[in-house]
Amino acid sequence: MIIIMEPKATEAEIQKVVTSMEAKGFKIILNKGDVMTVIAAIGDKRMVDPASIASLEGVRDVKLVQEPYKLASREGQEEDTVIEFPNGVKIGGLEKPVLMVGPCSVEKDIDGLLQVAYAAKEMGVPFLRGGAFKPRTSPYEFQGLEEQALKYLATAREKTGLLIVTEVMDTYDVPLVEDYADVVQIGARNMQNFKLLKAVGKCDKPVLLKRGPAASIREFLLAAEHIMCNGNEKVILCERGIKGFDSTFTRNTLDLAAVPVIKKYSHLPIVVDPSHACGRRYLIEPMSKAALMTGANGLLIEVHHDPDNASSDGAQSLNIEQFKKVAKNLNRLIGRIDYDNRNGKNE
Amino acid sequence: MIIIMEPKATEAEIQKVVTSMEAKGFKIILNKGDVMTVIAAIGDKRMVDPASIASLEGVRDVKLVQEPYKLASREGQEEDTVIEFPNGVKIGGLEKPVLMVGPCSVEKDIDGLLQVAYAAKEMGVPFLRGGAFKPRTSPYEFQGLEEQALKYLATAREKTGLLIVTEVMDTYDVPLVEDYADVVQIGARNMQNFKLLKAVGKCDKPVLLKRGPAASIREFLLAAEHIMCNGNEKVILCERGIKGFDSTFTRNTLDLAAVPVIKKYSHLPIVVDPSHACGRRYLIEPMSKAALMTGANGLLIEVHHDPDNASSDGAQSLNIEQFKKVAKNLNRLIGRIDYDNRNGKNE
Amino acid sequence: MIIIMEPKATEAEIQKVVTSMEAKGFKIILNKGDVMTVIAAIGDKRMVDPASIASLEGVRDVKLVQEPYKLASREGQEEDTVIEFPNGVKIGGLEKPVLMVGPCSVEKDIDGLLQVAYAAKEMGVPFLRGGAFKPRTSPYEFQGLEEQALKYLATAREKTGLLIVTEVMDTYDVPLVEDYADVVQIGARNMQNFKLLKAVGKCDKPVLLKRGPAASIREFLLAAEHIMCNGNEKVILCERGIKGFDSTFTRNTLDLAAVPVIKKYSHLPIVVDPSHACGRRYLIEPMSKAALMTGANGLLIEVHHDPDNASSDGAQSLNIEQFKKVAKNLNRLIGRIDYDNRNGKNE
Amino acid sequence: MIIIMEPKATEAEIQKVVTSMEAKGFKIILNKGDVMTVIAAIGDKRMVDPASIASLEGVRDVKLVQEPYKLASREGQEEDTVIEFPNGVKIGGLEKPVLMVGPCSVEKDIDGLLQVAYAAKEMGVPFLRGGAFKPRTSPYEFQGLEEQALKYLATAREKTGLLIVTEVMDTYDVPLVEDYADVVQIGARNMQNFKLLKAVGKCDKPVLLKRGPAASIREFLLAAEHIMCNGNEKVILCERGIKGFDSTFTRNTLDLAAVPVIKKYSHLPIVVDPSHACGRRYLIEPMSKAALMTGANGLLIEVHHDPDNASSDGAQSLNIEQFKKVAKNLNRLIGRIDYDNRNGKNE
Repeated sequence: MIIIMEPKATEAEIQKVVTSMEAKGFKIILNKGDVMTVIAAIGDKRMVDPASIASLEGVRDVKLVQEPYKLASREGQEEDTVIEFPNGVKIGGLEKPVLMVGPCSVEKDIDGLLQVAYAAKEMGVPFLRGGAFKPRTSPYEFQGLEEQALKYLATAREKTGLLIVTEVMDTYDVPLVEDYADVVQIGARNMQNFKLLKAVGKCDKPVLLKRGPAASIREFLLAAEHIMCNGNEKVILCERGIKGFDSTFTRNTLDLAAVPVIKKYSHLPIVVDPSHACGRRYLIEPMSKAALMTGANGLLIEVHHDPDNASSDGAQSLNIEQFKKVAKNLNRLIGRIDYDNRNGKNE
Repeated sequence: MIIIMEPKATEAEIQKVVTSMEAKGFKIILNKGDVMTVIAAIGDKRMVDPASIASLEGVRDVKLVQEPYKLASREGQEEDTVIEFPNGVKIGGLEKPVLMVGPCSVEKDIDGLLQVAYAAKEMGVPFLRGGAFKPRTSPYEFQGLEEQALKYLATAREKTGLLIVTEVMDTYDVPLVEDYADVVQIGARNMQNFKLLKAVGKCDKPVLLKRGPAASIREFLLAAEHIMCNGNEKVILCERGIKGFDSTFTRNTLDLAAVPVIKKYSHLPIVVDPSHACGRRYLIEPMSKAALMTGANGLLIEVHHDPDNASSDGAQSLNIEQFKKVAKNLNRLIGRIDYDNRNGKNE
Repeated sequence: MIIIMEPKATEAEIQKVVTSMEAKGFKIILNKGDVMTVIAAIGDKRMVDPASIASLEGVRDVKLVQEPYKLASREGQEEDTVIEFPNGVKIGGLEKPVLMVGPCSVEKDIDGLLQVAYAAKEMGVPFLRGGAFKPRTSPYEFQGLEEQALKYLATAREKTGLLIVTEVMDTYDVPLVEDYADVVQIGARNMQNFKLLKAVGKCDKPVLLKRGPAASIREFLLAAEHIMCNGNEKVILCERGIKGFDSTFTRNTLDLAAVPVIKKYSHLPIVVDPSHACGRRYLIEPMSKAALMTGANGLLIEVHHDPDNASSDGAQSLNIEQFKKVAKNLNRLIGRIDYDNRNGKNE
Repeated sequence: MIIIMEPKATEAEIQKVVTSMEAKGFKIILNKGDVMTVIAAIGDKRMVDPASIASLEGVRDVKLVQEPYKLASREGQEEDTVIEFPNGVKIGGLEKPVLMVGPCSVEKDIDGLLQVAYAAKEMGVPFLRGGAFKPRTSPYEFQGLEEQALKYLATAREKTGLLIVTEVMDTYDVPLVEDYADVVQIGARNMQNFKLLKAVGKCDKPVLLKRGPAASIREFLLAAEHIMCNGNEKVILCERGIKGFDSTFTRNTLDLAAVPVIKKYSHLPIVVDPSHACGRRYLIEPMSKAALMTGANGLLIEVHHDPDNASSDGAQSLNIEQFKKVAKNLNRLIGRIDYDNRNGKNE
């Protein structure tokens, strides 16, 4: 931690900071410049809130030297985390990127869901996604079928062997969702619902954690840390677009640079959701390919058997025919990436 | 709802939109221009998701005509909501703006809390705020004393008569918090935790709803609507700063224009939290005064008996002496505003 | 400057940074921690680009200790800059805040302009503003009357004694505009047009510098520094709203906290433009009052004799009657602020 | 244009809007709903400023139906613009994406520039970029060698045959820069320097227009329109990152979705600058590949013979060895894209 004092800070104020930091176990190095004093406090003490230091009189600014997460950090674990599922599917590191497809919400018509599941299986996709509990901006929109939807997803799994990804919105529902899901999803709006993070931190199932629309990369990795420090280290991160100043043509701003940045600072797998990020069907294929080239470990893509009549997010869903076409192109690209990875070649 | 078709939309595509909207109960007016067709769908049907229309082939864009909230809207209720507490304190409309002060977190030292409470009482402040459950970005920071803190707050209430504002973070804790609090707070990070909104929508106590850091004004009012349509219409909104591109000098960007905008579109009371918005002590007084001039019904201000040793947010907390000085100045301004309001004068 | 090395930086990499900084005249203090090395480079050398250090191998991050502007900084000059005009009007410091009013663009109808000018004079306003050269997002919109407009403004000055504020958009026009204007304005879109900043830095007239819509406070003060280091220290800053994620209800996000922040870090006067910031007539009065309470030295307000037929920005302009009502209320508030300032009272 | 009236708008207010729009040549269709009246004004009249309508009493909101640019729009020209240079190099449409590489600033050491130019030629790169006039946030940083630099660039062109891309910052310098450059660049900070846009609109050379850091896509295309409607239709757009809320790990947020969005709405070529967008060397390769997959027509990449001692932007520049490695990988990917484009295959 670097503590920068005001040019006019008094000797007593400087001493107070030094004493306070030493009391917290830091080793102090004092740099008195012509203009101001800079205090370096060395030590791996992540529990000290920089704001508590910043509040001392005479302190101008406090700067972090080390990223404040530990379990999620590349420094804490050098090799990539690869999550392996009982059926042998793997996600993370240099494993072949995987697709996760399905409708935004699971709806009453189980046949529609099964059509999507069979198409996914046909295209070699290992994961089926679908919402049972739906966070909706307006209370007047469809809120999800809850347990009924979980049962439909289980049926789809039985019939196709696909793994199920589905969201949990509340601590109360964690045991129920964990029971049905292969991957428990935390939605973007709940990225800093810390009680929920703690609850899924106690699950046995991998967690797909979506980045909040205004979350910095550091806040995102700290949210993962909340899960990991409760015991569950199988976290899959998901970039799904951040809030930007221009929502005329896309719903959010897809921050693809976050993928290689996170790969540098963390060992966790990261997938990209172009459907929610862009909110427009025509952008899914180009942004999916772009995501794969940044090193993403997978893609979440919304597919609905009848998007025109979907209860949510129709505008960004592919229909089954469109999905097959896109999946074919993505599979070709994934094949090349996998070939290059295995042969040590770049791209 | 206004549906703008692509210039190249076919007659069949146009007809499909018309049929679909009519089936949903809308009255349709078709405007065929030289360049493109525009469909006006008239009707008060808030349950139709614009995205489901946008997904139809040939649709370029869908624009909302009416704000999608109802109970929270000024159209639904013209007169201001004024919430009255059992002890006669009122908030909203042209009532005298109120202060809500206290530490970010309630800490082990109950004497510190009581010092703040007595100082608040002395300055005529009706509300004591303090966190029992603390959402913290890092899992390694202080998470709150939970029920112990609620008991301390109750003790402070007994001794001073102040009303208690405290946050609930999880549906599971709602009954407990409701038991102790006079106002149940929903934090900014939980503004779209819809299960929690639903749970406090079933409480008898007023709810203080903080704006999410990336929430648009529309999303903010829709979050209030989630609470209100579950039965609890006593919602106090709170502007607390939004995510901006410059966090060098302030924690967030305080969006004060949101106050008069919300007063135009909604009848609900709105308060401002300059402490969280700015994150710097020296900004609290000027931004508090500014907030009052925009028409805010109250202010949330962090006050700690010993900010240098606070477990959270020390840098933005006033100590007791600073608080008294600020409160004296704010009381003088509030007195003028109240006088002008009662005498029909502007400012 | 604080240079943070990667945990794995080699001794040679560390040495290279040290040598490079010493060569640039810095005094070096080396802090070797258990995890990483932190190098403090002490010295007032603003010309070293931090990015050039950040590019060295083994460097993780470089943090500035001192703000990179000098002439604009409070450290460089402690007392407030107060600009005095030949007619005795002053702006800055604890002087009475001033209004600057007038139409967005000067139009063909000089009578309209004169009506506004007379109304301004009647309300005690010292400055008339109006655009001769108009930056317009679309090339198909009205671009300004250029020299004709400058002549109209000069006529209005002759008749009313008001001081003229008008924008220059290009180095080529600087001599012409300087000839007519009492204050030369740099628009928000030109805040980083460095050739233009240099050109007005050589003018004798004070410069009103508008904050760019995406400019950080640091970039804003560096733009002022560009003007000042060319010889013109009479810079008036203007906050006029920054780009935000929600433009449904306001054009930009008015960042009022910038006022007290800038007052802390700089001695320059700062005014606020609520008209461009908010883009809605009904927000001008509350946001003007709020701006005054944050310590603003003045306000820019758009007034047009016939806003319904204005060639630009009608939606945010007051008509003359509305202006008089608002000015009366603002004058009352300014009177109180001035009284308190002169009597040493806070508020 | 769609004009939405307030629910309480009077008949007279509605009539005033109708009359006003008819006077401007629009065909009016009036939709009176139960709640509010919606007026559709049909006609291709881009010169009407929506804000002037929004200012009329009783108007709640005005929504554009047609994009306000014409020459830049896909509706105005269906086929892609392909710009061909005298030496046969082409940019745009389905032509092979091109690289533009070189140092941020041209420096005193012409040998360094020539090293980069020869390396570029060796790797099959057709364009050399380098700044002669340098926009710098701080006035204390290197401002460019001006004409001297232009001469160095001309020398490099003579020796290698590369085409030269260089920035012009001021109308005054346009003739000089046009004389030396093959492509005249408008920097991000000057995207709305309308006098400069007009000046390059009168040039014969193609213009590379960089997106402003806070520019919406619509504002970006309107800036292109400013150039085009002055006679120069050879505009190359460049996405170079937008201002985001997280600059800890990247300088800006690279908005790659802008590429396919712009390709849908405009026929102009668009290139991507990952160096300025990300500001970190390690992000250049992955983000370049991602950009190519979104359909970008080219890439701007900073290459310096000695980045550790560059006068600007060293942290984001590749050295020559790194460049060759990256270029090899990008050329392989470009080859595949080109093959697929020519063979009608997707991806």
